[in-house]
Amino acid sequence: MDKSSISKPSLRRLPVYLSYLKTLPPSTRTISATAVAAALGLNEVQVRKDLSAASSSGGRPKMGYSVEELIADLEEFLGYRNTKDAILIGVGRLGGALLSFTGFQACGMRIAAAFDNDPMKIGTCIGGVQIHDILDFPIVCPHMGAHIGILTTSPEHAQALCDLMLEHGILAIWNFSTAHLEVPDNIIVHNENLAVSLAMISHDLEEMLDKEGGKNS
Amino acid sequence: MDKSSISKPSLRRLPVYLSYLKTLPPSTRTISATAVAAALGLNEVQVRKDLSAASSSGGRPKMGYSVEELIADLEEFLGYRNTKDAILIGVGRLGGALLSFTGFQACGMRIAAAFDNDPMKIGTCIGGVQIHDILDFPIVCPHMGAHIGILTTSPEHAQALCDLMLEHGILAIWNFSTAHLEVPDNIIVHNENLAVSLAMISHDLEEMLDKEGGKNS
Repeated sequence: MDKSSISKPSLRRLPVYLSYLKTLPPSTRTISATAVAAALGLNEVQVRKDLSAASSSGGRPKMGYSVEELIADLEEFLGYRNTKDAILIGVGRLGGALLSFTGFQACGMRIAAAFDNDPMKIGTCIGGVQIHDILDFPIVCPHMGAHIGILTTSPEHAQALCDLMLEHGILAIWNFSTAHLEVPDNIIVHNENLAVSLAMISHDLEEMLDKEGGKNS
Repeated sequence: MDKSSISKPSLRRLPVYLSYLKTLPPSTRTISATAVAAALGLNEVQVRKDLSAASSSGGRPKMGYSVEELIADLEEFLGYRNTKDAILIGVGRLGGALLSFTGFQACGMRIAAAFDNDPMKIGTCIGGVQIHDILDFPIVCPHMGAHIGILTTSPEHAQALCDLMLEHGILAIWNFSTAHLEVPDNIIVHNENLAVSLAMISHDLEEMLDKEGGKNS
């Protein structure tokens, strides 16, 4: 169950198995390596070996694999279930503040990599996080296996960078830019609008002052 | 209705009137300048002049002032109703990011002053906001008339700085430190825990992946 114990050609076949398994009707509860091999036109011995390397649940004799478990195992193995690592785009003041923030670890979270287009920042580290060239995003992000993207850019570049993230495996976006992001239905967007937060505090304060003043009315 | 049009001794008497008005029983709906002067042992002409300078509603002949309106007018005049200005303590990376954040203005909010203890930062500006010595807080903060405090310090100093804010007119705190703040019941605290926000996104992502995996179960 260690990526280094599996050959590169095997690793490249795993997403093919995963895609196929996801096309199966919900009524298909189990499947054998033989059936997967036949459906994809691959060598049966090879498929059996690939699946047993990637899946901890293992195929039961005659029964084959539970489709649900096999999907979960493949996703886990491929890092598709990595929900703790985030990448960050935009190393301005706010991005830098988030990179140097030490509180994420206590919640089991981590910013695994950061991206910017400023040559002065590329190659440096903040809070132990390396800042990569945004042009390397399509290679570095999938390699990290992160699915959470933190967007700390100016609003005018937010949508293009959001699209870039979604093209390369990001499924959830923490949006600190004030831009409204257009995303497909299955993408999670959490808008962190600092101005609105401060305005809400102001609103609560006004209400409290009204109530206090009202004591004498 | 302009502070410069009122004498300093008058300005110093206004909070005395305000305190007195707040002690009146709720059944007291109106009060005359004569009654206020008598209760506080002050010159009637002086009180009449002070109140008419500070209150836009004005005393009606025979009726006197509405107590509720007079309290609101005095608070407004004294800047007690300033709910749009905030001060910030702790000009680290995050504090600096908030000072240079341009989005607050759109919500009518403003960071009016910042405080730190770093001699390299004191006297400089970020985002047009001056950074003052934290030792000057007791003078500068009440002068600003701000009632919202933004706390962007390390957790170990958070409570002491929170106490300092409350001693000098802050009524609502936006707490970015991860410390739990002990405050009286009438103080508003809005905890901005960035780690928890990121952990919530992770949780939503996990749920979404479970649901997507579950399509084949």
